[in-house]
Amino acid sequence: MISELSSLDATFDQQLSQLLAFESDTGEQVEQTVKQILHAVRTDGDAAVLRFTAQFDQLSVSTMAELEVSSDRLLTAFEELDVEQRDALLLAAERVRAYHERQLQASWQYQESDGTVLGQQITAMERVGIYVPGGKAVYPSSVLMNAIPAKVAGVDEIIMVVPAPKGEINPLVLAAAHIAGVDRVFTVGGAQAVAALAYGTATIPKVDKIVGPGNIFVATAKRAVFGAVAIDMIAGPSEILVICDGQTDPDWIAMDLFSQAEHDELAQAILISPDAAFLKAVKASIARLLPTLERHAIAAKSLRGRGALILVESLEQAMALCNRIAPEHLELSVDEPERWLPSIRHAGAIFMGRYTAEALGDYCAGPNHVLPTSGTARFSSPLGVYDFQKRSSLIYCSPQGASELGRCASVLARGESLEAHARSAEYRIIEK
Amino acid sequence: MISELSSLDATFDQQLSQLLAFESDTGEQVEQTVKQILHAVRTDGDAAVLRFTAQFDQLSVSTMAELEVSSDRLLTAFEELDVEQRDALLLAAERVRAYHERQLQASWQYQESDGTVLGQQITAMERVGIYVPGGKAVYPSSVLMNAIPAKVAGVDEIIMVVPAPKGEINPLVLAAAHIAGVDRVFTVGGAQAVAALAYGTATIPKVDKIVGPGNIFVATAKRAVFGAVAIDMIAGPSEILVICDGQTDPDWIAMDLFSQAEHDELAQAILISPDAAFLKAVKASIARLLPTLERHAIAAKSLRGRGALILVESLEQAMALCNRIAPEHLELSVDEPERWLPSIRHAGAIFMGRYTAEALGDYCAGPNHVLPTSGTARFSSPLGVYDFQKRSSLIYCSPQGASELGRCASVLARGESLEAHARSAEYRIIEK
Repeated sequence: MISELSSLDATFDQQLSQLLAFESDTGEQVEQTVKQILHAVRTDGDAAVLRFTAQFDQLSVSTMAELEVSSDRLLTAFEELDVEQRDALLLAAERVRAYHERQLQASWQYQESDGTVLGQQITAMERVGIYVPGGKAVYPSSVLMNAIPAKVAGVDEIIMVVPAPKGEINPLVLAAAHIAGVDRVFTVGGAQAVAALAYGTATIPKVDKIVGPGNIFVATAKRAVFGAVAIDMIAGPSEILVICDGQTDPDWIAMDLFSQAEHDELAQAILISPDAAFLKAVKASIARLLPTLERHAIAAKSLRGRGALILVESLEQAMALCNRIAPEHLELSVDEPERWLPSIRHAGAIFMGRYTAEALGDYCAGPNHVLPTSGTARFSSPLGVYDFQKRSSLIYCSPQGASELGRCASVLARGESLEAHARSAEYRIIEK
Repeated sequence: MISELSSLDATFDQQLSQLLAFESDTGEQVEQTVKQILHAVRTDGDAAVLRFTAQFDQLSVSTMAELEVSSDRLLTAFEELDVEQRDALLLAAERVRAYHERQLQASWQYQESDGTVLGQQITAMERVGIYVPGGKAVYPSSVLMNAIPAKVAGVDEIIMVVPAPKGEINPLVLAAAHIAGVDRVFTVGGAQAVAALAYGTATIPKVDKIVGPGNIFVATAKRAVFGAVAIDMIAGPSEILVICDGQTDPDWIAMDLFSQAEHDELAQAILISPDAAFLKAVKASIARLLPTLERHAIAAKSLRGRGALILVESLEQAMALCNRIAPEHLELSVDEPERWLPSIRHAGAIFMGRYTAEALGDYCAGPNHVLPTSGTARFSSPLGVYDFQKRSSLIYCSPQGASELGRCASVLARGESLEAHARSAEYRIIEK
């Protein structure tokens, strides 16, 4: 049902490596298909977008205008929400906005004694593209999580693309786009949507950055256009690591594990505890509750294939394992969770205490739910306002400062055999 | 010698687009070679590294230990520097460190009225790899610019790789590694060095991020390993845009343009001014000074192929053009340059006033010289401390907060058909 590991086991290290191993292998076939789509959209623009949309989404229209969703339609979708959903989306948006406003960075400058000024100027990107998956997995929360940070950063225009297979599109997604302040929406998906955003077509404007999750074609296309535009990280399956001291209701922990496992058969849910009896209790909860889930087939497969209950000797050891795993989501279901923060080096988001279910963070706590997966928390961060801002260095030398720095630059430039650099600096040296 | 454009020209827009057009095309051949090298190093580790180093760098050794440069050798290189170079490198390092310390980000938290705490915890990456080109282009300044921000960020270990063709390695580069606090140095280059850093071998440790410039094989390898590790942007040829009001010495401006053009035949140097007579004077300076350059052949080819003198109607128009170009380096060689800062949306680094030659920033002003090229300043930033730090979201709900958020999350989760998410949140709702 779910693997059970113990850190005391002689082969634990190897078992853990095996548990964590995950490789997304893009087949040669996918790469070639994506390459062709990118090339076609780059060359033929709108015509190619129309062609691929008919081919892949069974959505045949004759003009690009038919693929744009008007702002009126977004508003209508919002107005037609039932009250409970509308209030929940509005509350979530408000809290996400409030949190992300704290991430805004400010320009700064400082002056040195000779009058030279150094600094950093912060500006926002002009135009950002957001990819929203269509079809089965419909996530209005993702629209909020991707669009609001860009809006807070000061991005001028947000373009959303979302496939509408056979013309079907979820009204919750359109309502979320309205709430988040998305400027334009196109019902285009797949590699063709990424290509349109990266290169621009007559209808779909070229953006500076593309964010948002997608299938293997979308991910491969994003990797291919990286450099021409910025992209966010390419996400793997979602995962959670719960560390529990054994004092939380086992049913709660079981459900927290399910909330990850129900996403995807490849999703990963791991519980670590120093309390063997507690692990047993959680296992019993899993056995009892799993059949009651709507998505029990997916959750069961995820737990069986990638889940684990891990017995450790201490919470200290649990934290060390956490840093090795670098989980996307970390639940610290323990007393005084703040005491452990300094031990946590790698985690996308840290859910502290017994009350902070990951699901709260997925929707409405405020922090972003777009988080680094598959151990990439070692080197990446949650999506944030900083992903839509950028920096320009400022250097303003006083005549005196330029003269001093000129001597230094001249020596170093000549050491690198860059004579024009040296002479350019030397012009600014004040001869004594 | 150098193109002359006027914004009044009917075809100016088209001419400018042509001037800026640059596409780095990685041939299929290069991609296949890199793929094979990556696979070989991933599979055979050190043995493959030794094999490729013998093949590509004509450096045949039998053990990996022979490819590691000891810290003693770095120290010796530093001690053997002539005094002038040593002082210049030390001053540059000190100034780069002081500037980058201002970029350090701090963790933050805030508490809501119901006791819920939200925040962001900042941590440093553990291990970073720095690629340093060997052979002809030897840039100790790049070692400083790449290593110091990582060090300031708090990275535990910095691994430098630098090819040593036929065993030759520039002592300035080793001295700079000593000054910057690089922890280990391997004389390995090319795609095999990138592979070793990305996957790890028995000898070369796996890193979290790879930064630093390299040839087409290095760039292609970085793109391929992106995701397994973080990488910096893939750099194109260097460029400068000088905007001048016509009041700077034309020889100074000519030399500033040369300091970019001498880098590379593909480097781009553009001057924009509203003063036609000044553009003429700079053209005369170029004609007079170009033959006096050590690297005149390269500079001449760069100016002829990619350089331009552009006449505009006003400085306002010059700033608008700057935002279209999004230059790596922008020199504002004008009175009161600070007045124009709010108009500059896209530029990697802004060199303000007549005294601030770009060369000063390349070496020792303090800001980083690793800057976004080819218009990528639209969406990226200079290399900085923030490139080696990452963020974890913090969410710590009070029982009351969890209850309120639980209601909201429950509604949204059910709207997304994620029932286990909803139930996990609902467990935390306090029934009234």
